[in-house]
Amino acid sequence: MTCRVTFIPDNLTVEADKHESLVTLAARGDIFLRGACGGAGTCGRCRVLLVSGSVVVRGEGDVHSPVEVLACRACPVTDVVIEIPDSARLGSHRVLIEEHGRGKLDEAPVSSKVALAPLYESVELTMTAPTLDDARDDWSRLQAELRKKAPGMNPLMTLGFARDLPQAARKGNWRVAVDLAHAGPFTELAGISTAGVSSPRFGLAVDLGTTTVACQLVNLSDGKTAASSGTYNRQAAFGDDVISRIIYATEEPGGLARLRHEAVATVNSLIEEMVKEAGVGYGDIRAVYVAGNPIMTHLFLGVDPAYLRLEPYVPAVNSWSPVQAGELGVRVHPRAWIHCAPGVASYLGGDITAGLVVAGLPETDELTLFVDIGTNGEMVLGNRDWLVGCACSAGPSFEGSGITNGMRAVDGAIEMVGISSGGYEVFWRTIGAVPPRGICGTGLIDALATLREAGVIDRGGRFVAGLDTPRLRTGLEGREFVLAWGSESGYGRDIVLSEADLNNLMRAKAAVFAGIRVMLNAVGLDASDIQRVLIAGGFGRYLNLAQAVAVGILPDLPVDRYSFLGNTSLKGARLALLSREVRDKVEEVAYSLTYLDLSTGTSFMDEFMLALFIPHTDMGLFPSVVGQGGD
Amino acid sequence: MTCRVTFIPDNLTVEADKHESLVTLAARGDIFLRGACGGAGTCGRCRVLLVSGSVVVRGEGDVHSPVEVLACRACPVTDVVIEIPDSARLGSHRVLIEEHGRGKLDEAPVSSKVALAPLYESVELTMTAPTLDDARDDWSRLQAELRKKAPGMNPLMTLGFARDLPQAARKGNWRVAVDLAHAGPFTELAGISTAGVSSPRFGLAVDLGTTTVACQLVNLSDGKTAASSGTYNRQAAFGDDVISRIIYATEEPGGLARLRHEAVATVNSLIEEMVKEAGVGYGDIRAVYVAGNPIMTHLFLGVDPAYLRLEPYVPAVNSWSPVQAGELGVRVHPRAWIHCAPGVASYLGGDITAGLVVAGLPETDELTLFVDIGTNGEMVLGNRDWLVGCACSAGPSFEGSGITNGMRAVDGAIEMVGISSGGYEVFWRTIGAVPPRGICGTGLIDALATLREAGVIDRGGRFVAGLDTPRLRTGLEGREFVLAWGSESGYGRDIVLSEADLNNLMRAKAAVFAGIRVMLNAVGLDASDIQRVLIAGGFGRYLNLAQAVAVGILPDLPVDRYSFLGNTSLKGARLALLSREVRDKVEEVAYSLTYLDLSTGTSFMDEFMLALFIPHTDMGLFPSVVGQGGD
Repeated sequence: MTCRVTFIPDNLTVEADKHESLVTLAARGDIFLRGACGGAGTCGRCRVLLVSGSVVVRGEGDVHSPVEVLACRACPVTDVVIEIPDSARLGSHRVLIEEHGRGKLDEAPVSSKVALAPLYESVELTMTAPTLDDARDDWSRLQAELRKKAPGMNPLMTLGFARDLPQAARKGNWRVAVDLAHAGPFTELAGISTAGVSSPRFGLAVDLGTTTVACQLVNLSDGKTAASSGTYNRQAAFGDDVISRIIYATEEPGGLARLRHEAVATVNSLIEEMVKEAGVGYGDIRAVYVAGNPIMTHLFLGVDPAYLRLEPYVPAVNSWSPVQAGELGVRVHPRAWIHCAPGVASYLGGDITAGLVVAGLPETDELTLFVDIGTNGEMVLGNRDWLVGCACSAGPSFEGSGITNGMRAVDGAIEMVGISSGGYEVFWRTIGAVPPRGICGTGLIDALATLREAGVIDRGGRFVAGLDTPRLRTGLEGREFVLAWGSESGYGRDIVLSEADLNNLMRAKAAVFAGIRVMLNAVGLDASDIQRVLIAGGFGRYLNLAQAVAVGILPDLPVDRYSFLGNTSLKGARLALLSREVRDKVEEVAYSLTYLDLSTGTSFMDEFMLALFIPHTDMGLFPSVVGQGGD
Repeated sequence: MTCRVTFIPDNLTVEADKHESLVTLAARGDIFLRGACGGAGTCGRCRVLLVSGSVVVRGEGDVHSPVEVLACRACPVTDVVIEIPDSARLGSHRVLIEEHGRGKLDEAPVSSKVALAPLYESVELTMTAPTLDDARDDWSRLQAELRKKAPGMNPLMTLGFARDLPQAARKGNWRVAVDLAHAGPFTELAGISTAGVSSPRFGLAVDLGTTTVACQLVNLSDGKTAASSGTYNRQAAFGDDVISRIIYATEEPGGLARLRHEAVATVNSLIEEMVKEAGVGYGDIRAVYVAGNPIMTHLFLGVDPAYLRLEPYVPAVNSWSPVQAGELGVRVHPRAWIHCAPGVASYLGGDITAGLVVAGLPETDELTLFVDIGTNGEMVLGNRDWLVGCACSAGPSFEGSGITNGMRAVDGAIEMVGISSGGYEVFWRTIGAVPPRGICGTGLIDALATLREAGVIDRGGRFVAGLDTPRLRTGLEGREFVLAWGSESGYGRDIVLSEADLNNLMRAKAAVFAGIRVMLNAVGLDASDIQRVLIAGGFGRYLNLAQAVAVGILPDLPVDRYSFLGNTSLKGARLALLSREVRDKVEEVAYSLTYLDLSTGTSFMDEFMLALFIPHTDMGLFPSVVGQGGD
């Protein structure tokens, strides 16, 4: 029996099969719920109101309206109406596809920067016509010309190519266009046609993020972007971060298949949007390049990620072979090869290797720090001669995850916090200029810096006792500071920053800075030696750089050394689709980068402890911050 | 509406959809009808009796029983009963799979002759276990070991391999068995399992002949043959020889698809037999090697063969890329790669290149003549230093095609003819020692030699006028000689050899000898220089060598220079499945062989005219025949 589930206030109704959770059902209607426990029912983020009808809650049995239930544990047994509060929502789509803010990368057509040599290309050739004296087969005569154009190519004919060869050659008076699909160790001769009548060829660039997925549809014949789109990763319904995804994949029966399915469904939904927008056929998309972290890549391909989180933390594969789209169910040409950018280690993946090439690290002489903080945090230090990198799970806090009133950078998120001088009145600015519903990463860093400057929190990141303000109070879980009163919020309740939130933020910022220090120590350099800092990913989008330095996340360097690169993972995927040189560089980066595993050895823990102060235990590392605020 | 069609005397009933010809319907019940016109209705070989019911005859409309109809032109419109006379049948299955006759090749296990390096193999490897100090991904550690075992290999992971890798490695304590599928320019990593628990791996060797198809199921782990089978090529219902197949494929709407389908169906029927016999699963067959002539190979792959018979006679492809079985519908593991032996020219194909390697031509120092006369005739001359080859369509006559009472070498075929000394009484021996139904190739050569010796025919291959015997008479189409009276035959009518038959035989034998002479002329050698003659194919099976020399088909050389090799195409396919060395040699032979096109230039026509005598115009070429018979 199927039930009808209506979500309000969206007024959206979906049909439910039994055993489908409300999280899954909501996702089917493009309503994404929060969740950090992979459906274990422990994080409480997906709490919704059962307005009418009955549901069965796993481990509890049937419950009847009206009652609050965890959407991840509840499956409808009758037609139901479910009210989803804002607090349970991931928020509306707002995915970083391209950076149009400060310091953005040159977006000149790729042809002016790298030679166009796409993963799927059409090559025009003139064959010699056969005669009685030269009665070689069609293929030998074509191959001779191919060898001139592409020496060293390792060709494999498809049946379609062989079947079209004789007619195509004769129809075009021996002038043909051969479609080449580069597929790692060989090049597939995917098709042949009379020269001059070649069909459209598009490529799909995918940034497969833990929280968000962004895609670009690229015309492979001129390198132009035909459409862009982004959305939440539907896997998010099964866990906020990579660790909860691994747990779901390995411990939940069918979990791996489910997560693989959700990743593919996410990509397919974006493809659908883009082909409509660009007026392109699904079958015209002939190559796909995916840049994702190792966990996302394993899950997308359906490869067990269990060992990524078990000592000694090894991926099944870093350098993947291409796979045909039909085998994965990605809705492009079924024979299109899907290439995944190579990773380096369990927590340093293809999103970073692709991003490093976009950021130009393999070519620069300057000592460069590359920081990509998304749901995970990855840092790489180096130049054309050497690269070291590391990863930490600092990201989620900066995305609002694990924070009482944290939320992603969408409408209603507090993104800036100020305090009246000589008092504790709080001012804030929200994204979209609507009443606040929570606080996003940028706001959290701003709050941390501002509250520290105002003396509300001490250098250790703890609330100072005995301040004369009702905003600092004791809640159910310790001290908390009220950023916005319920009367002001678009949420009906107070928006607070708790002691636990401070703790999480301090640990996150300390992890990032400690990671940077470990890399510097490994190569015997100081932060002051860093000539450029490149900030990639969503983290940099609205970041107040001065505040990020003030709290000690990023090194205290002149502002002009910092650049913001936007979504380098997507940009890298796009360039890799188009340029052989870029693809080779991504492979080279993956091969040569030295990964420092922060979870082993004591150096990181030492640095981490030293960084658990604002900005740092060693104030000498932050000369421009010295003197600000007081103890 | 479907009709029921009952064939008698077989008493076999099949369901017919409309528009299915009686030829097609009979083939579905494994009754193969003769035909040389590709369904044009001109050769008259498939004439059957409509005993009851009605059929629609193409171009004529409905006809009703009792009446004789051409099965290729008639489709049932009601339930019908059809009587198939022996004259319309291809006969029961009797396909040359292995030669157990004289001079057969050494059949020792291949491992004693060539190193076992099959197209699909399992390689056992011990990976280093990961540690915190060596946290490379599983694949890197496996790849390092693979490189030691197979340097220069170009690997491509399948999804299945990547998905099984982490568990297989850990379950087997880092000792794994990797399945390698060699696929031309790369090697597919088709699977991985814990070492010691590898699954069965079989290969399929296919001799894809114009008239017959023979297969062997080979255990790829030890090289042993698990089962063998052969049958008629179901395409035969659409034409006896390669030219009529090309015409059907190019001129009949859907003809190419139909012939492709029939070839695959033929192979699939053999696979079905063999997997049952050997107790092997379809999915256990992981590699296929097909040796066929260029037309059969084009048709099997669904590639238009039109240009093979249009000047300047070029194949679409000589050197094919492997294709996955699932794409062709061959019933083995769907990802098994099907390899087709490379051809040389339009009428010299993979059956010959594979056969030459079995025959040892690329290794011998002796000047060797290789003759493979099946439905087509191909001849190759040479040694380890050089090879020249040519082809003629001489074969069909020697298989009974184009001969009034010709039939294939099956039960009831006259295979030996004798004449009483001092009279014209005829003795014959039939295959299976049953009353004669016709005469096969061996019998025809024997008849030609015997009748020449008895003075019934002259040196020019014509009947001598005025002989005192009722056996030599004038029939509807000129003179004919009665080999068996209707009262003796298992056919009810006289079995005769007509003037037209003699003409066909003379042309066939002249074409073979002329081809040999053209090759000798091209390299400036004489027949007497030939040190070995290797006879391949069905032609040699029951051949009386002395008679073949007496009529001038084969050069007049000492008998000990002749060897009979049996089905070298099938043997070559089997060895290619098993041995990389053999595969490389087949490629090398295809690349280096010089093809002489007999249809162009005048040298062949001159030699052909000279050979239209028994044994030859130049008696000096046949010293041992001189003095036999009289004029």
